[in-house]
Amino acid sequence: MTKSSKIPRRILLGPGPSDVHDRVLRAMSRPVIGHLDPEFLQIMDQTQGMLREAFATTNPVTFPISGTGSAGMEAAIVNMVEPGDRVVVGVAGFFAQRLAEQAERNGAEVVRVEADWGTSIDPERIAAAIQEGDTKIVALVHVETSTGVLQQLYDVVQAAHAAGAMVIVDAVASLGGHPVDVDARGIDVCYSGSQKCLSAPPGLAPITFSEAAVARVKQRRTPVRSWYLDVSLLTKYWGGDRTYHHTAPISSVYALHEALRIVNAEGADERAARHRRHHQALVTGLEAMGLKMVVEDPQRRAWTLNAVRVPDGVDDAEVRSFLLRRHGIEIAGGLGPLAGKIWRIGLMGESATRNNVLLLLGALELAMKLQGHQHTPGAGVGAAVEAYAG
Amino acid sequence: MTKSSKIPRRILLGPGPSDVHDRVLRAMSRPVIGHLDPEFLQIMDQTQGMLREAFATTNPVTFPISGTGSAGMEAAIVNMVEPGDRVVVGVAGFFAQRLAEQAERNGAEVVRVEADWGTSIDPERIAAAIQEGDTKIVALVHVETSTGVLQQLYDVVQAAHAAGAMVIVDAVASLGGHPVDVDARGIDVCYSGSQKCLSAPPGLAPITFSEAAVARVKQRRTPVRSWYLDVSLLTKYWGGDRTYHHTAPISSVYALHEALRIVNAEGADERAARHRRHHQALVTGLEAMGLKMVVEDPQRRAWTLNAVRVPDGVDDAEVRSFLLRRHGIEIAGGLGPLAGKIWRIGLMGESATRNNVLLLLGALELAMKLQGHQHTPGAGVGAAVEAYAG
Repeated sequence: MTKSSKIPRRILLGPGPSDVHDRVLRAMSRPVIGHLDPEFLQIMDQTQGMLREAFATTNPVTFPISGTGSAGMEAAIVNMVEPGDRVVVGVAGFFAQRLAEQAERNGAEVVRVEADWGTSIDPERIAAAIQEGDTKIVALVHVETSTGVLQQLYDVVQAAHAAGAMVIVDAVASLGGHPVDVDARGIDVCYSGSQKCLSAPPGLAPITFSEAAVARVKQRRTPVRSWYLDVSLLTKYWGGDRTYHHTAPISSVYALHEALRIVNAEGADERAARHRRHHQALVTGLEAMGLKMVVEDPQRRAWTLNAVRVPDGVDDAEVRSFLLRRHGIEIAGGLGPLAGKIWRIGLMGESATRNNVLLLLGALELAMKLQGHQHTPGAGVGAAVEAYAG
Repeated sequence: MTKSSKIPRRILLGPGPSDVHDRVLRAMSRPVIGHLDPEFLQIMDQTQGMLREAFATTNPVTFPISGTGSAGMEAAIVNMVEPGDRVVVGVAGFFAQRLAEQAERNGAEVVRVEADWGTSIDPERIAAAIQEGDTKIVALVHVETSTGVLQQLYDVVQAAHAAGAMVIVDAVASLGGHPVDVDARGIDVCYSGSQKCLSAPPGLAPITFSEAAVARVKQRRTPVRSWYLDVSLLTKYWGGDRTYHHTAPISSVYALHEALRIVNAEGADERAARHRRHHQALVTGLEAMGLKMVVEDPQRRAWTLNAVRVPDGVDDAEVRSFLLRRHGIEIAGGLGPLAGKIWRIGLMGESATRNNVLLLLGALELAMKLQGHQHTPGAGVGAAVEAYAG
């Protein structure tokens, strides 16, 4: 018989999953009940209400997709894009590339507005691309998890709407950390993942569709290619009818429900301020160790995902392995062209704490010192302490 | 703030989810770790090994899809079907209709071989349909959850292979209850759901692809329409490379891992015999109360899902509501044309026990007596007792 596995407790400072609160872990172990049980229907209603609060929207069509953040991306694309549609995608990282690829798989004519990885995309360039053709959809990544860039949204939404196009925003690494403000920004479709700044386990992808987006789906000339992700069918289950579509992942919904209670009790402003505070302390500490952030413009740095360059002479994988084995701390390496060149340090949801910032800086100082890196021991932690004290 | 919900403990005798073992519930509350953590990679390996044992296959490409059983269905279709392909689907129930619809959404030319709901489909009719054209794929539901029919597979697989076609089998309601025997039967693609006879929470869809099926996917002329369910990309993550694709639903994998330990420790033969034994006792009891099974041929009745007709003068919904409110027992009503006309009683995985059979029969006797149904009190339970004693 296969042995039971002992799961170590980690400190999750990678790009997600983030640390999960004990209350949420306990919620996962509640008894499983039926997906049409009146008690579960109530949990669904409450979960939808709390998701609207987190997205800052009144959209009726707001619920978690029964898949991970990538399924949320695919749900946005398959419902909104029809074959032949002109789709403008802002591309400056791994997840934006994926958005473009998914749109292409759905038969879209994709126009990529590219920028160097580690920079944000000038909204005016996107606006120009929108106007160069009969653009139907514009897709943007809010926080690019591969680079740590925070993308401006507001001006792009304005330009898209002026041209009659609709906007999809990937908020996988921002919802619950940065303000997303779906209604205030006029975002048409926005999706996220449960395991980033909401700090639930991975497996659900919160998504919201504006009434205009729902109307667009209803007017499609072609059927949505995915049955599993067809928002019209999903709405019949999550909406008032409760028409059976698929069996909701009961335990994962319990966990998201409990996680959202924690998120909303903290409050959006306080939660954003907390993410910003710890991000700033971490960056101050990293820079005091002589490290360079991937994103040069401080205004364009995400608070939730901090990308920092691996200095010359230091072995990326050795440091990560040391942190994991000796300190139980997970951070991540780079993706695509940044593999081996950067570390990605997530401070998301439950993971965004002063303890984690100070501990990571201390452990990173040790790991790098063992690799022969030149910095004054204590410099990183000291700078973070000053940032907090200030 | 939204209130925390108290989740009642139910006795789950519907079409899934089934009762979840406390060991599996506890596994769900283990700490979340990263999806590329060496400890998690080991759990993935073990889960794949145990899934191969459950499917009775040596297929390397065997893993859980990060979605529910319906996502497993879609994964089978989107990978195996190309636009214009002739796909023969055996249709005698709700889930077979869904299979046909999913194939159509993927651009297939679908040929339905239909039979009345509650009957199985004659393998010779399917074989004839296969030979009437250049059939690429044949799709069948092993246990049709909407009717409780067990479909014969072996002769269909032979006919399909003789014609150069491949076979997809929906084992959502059979894997872990009835023998599925993927390799012995020569099934090319087989998928299931975590929450039926495997008794894990819903959210994962075990799937397996034969080497011939993998070769077919590699030779596609068109890209797989779904990025999330693209088996070539998924294999790079679940296979040796561990290339990042999406964040696996960590906690759900813990649960499936623990559930599979229980499934495989019991053993396939013993587990099948247990499901058959409790099915037979339940049917004996129901018939002793004067109720009629939907599936007339005892050989074609699934052991895992028992469909029984609601007798005249008895209110379907009232009885189900009484069982849930007063006894904490969930059974289900009918789907589609059978709505209001049948009850569906699942005896799946952890739910397939003598206690559950005796308790359900007793509670059903009471619920029906309160509705004025004529039967000798104790007749149902008595007949089941005799069946067990014999």
